[in-house]
Amino acid sequence: MQRVASALEEHDFPAGSTIFHAGELGRTMYLLAQGEVEVIATSAEGKRIALVKLGPGECFGEMALIELQPRSATVRVRKKAKAYSLNNMDLYNLYREDNYAFVIVLQNICRIVSRRLRKADSRICDFLAGSSRQLNPAVGARRSFRRGRSRSDRGTPPGPR
Amino acid sequence: MQRVASALEEHDFPAGSTIFHAGELGRTMYLLAQGEVEVIATSAEGKRIALVKLGPGECFGEMALIELQPRSATVRVRKKAKAYSLNNMDLYNLYREDNYAFVIVLQNICRIVSRRLRKADSRICDFLAGSSRQLNPAVGARRSFRRGRSRSDRGTPPGPR
Repeated sequence: MQRVASALEEHDFPAGSTIFHAGELGRTMYLLAQGEVEVIATSAEGKRIALVKLGPGECFGEMALIELQPRSATVRVRKKAKAYSLNNMDLYNLYREDNYAFVIVLQNICRIVSRRLRKADSRICDFLAGSSRQLNPAVGARRSFRRGRSRSDRGTPPGPR
Repeated sequence: MQRVASALEEHDFPAGSTIFHAGELGRTMYLLAQGEVEVIATSAEGKRIALVKLGPGECFGEMALIELQPRSATVRVRKKAKAYSLNNMDLYNLYREDNYAFVIVLQNICRIVSRRLRKADSRICDFLAGSSRQLNPAVGARRSFRRGRSRSDRGTPPGPR
């Protein structure tokens, strides 16, 4: 996976800065190494809502990279952050030069997104059930990502399990 | 993509039957060709909640296939359904025998999950903003999947865009 590591670009973001805005085009995902960011979405009525806070080891921006759609949310830096970026060209070069590494990266992105969807569905379910346990979104969601992480992220081949 | 089509297995499910239950182990995803199913989750308090209805052209079960985790929800047949299944062995064989097709399939699964997460985040945002527009979950979510589908599902190479 050295090929993957060499493709990553390092960025430093000061507290209070915005890494990207909802609606922008963007083909870059970020892996947060230090600091804290928050993901801010806009409701149907135009309210800005902090959906989740992310810390070291977590990633963001992968949805625009995968989907060819504009950014779904704004990401703002809460605590001075260091992040590594991977864009669509890096991914394409990886596909051509090291197919195995490409497949591992794509599988891991897929797992991260799937795990987030699992958690999001669970929050929606609780909202629909009239539960109030999920009213502190940031803490709940963040904890869940951590709990959901498994050793499989580190590079399982795409084989049968 | 003939290799993919030949790996799919056809299933007929009568109305009222359950395709899989939340908590089960499962490494099979389904592509719905005819009929209608509903995805039912259980809230923290144990209430069963219909999260979404799915119709022809939509898929389900992909999260357990990707994540190596138990099924996150129960899928029940509302209208007599025909579905095609793809399991982890099929995917592994595809990886070995037709890497390009494998990458296309994996990318498409990734996009479907990402699109669902985008929609789920939007619903959560509306819930948090105190909106009541999302209180009919099935209709809203289903419409969104259809709207979100793009031509890229049909087989773009994993190249730069």
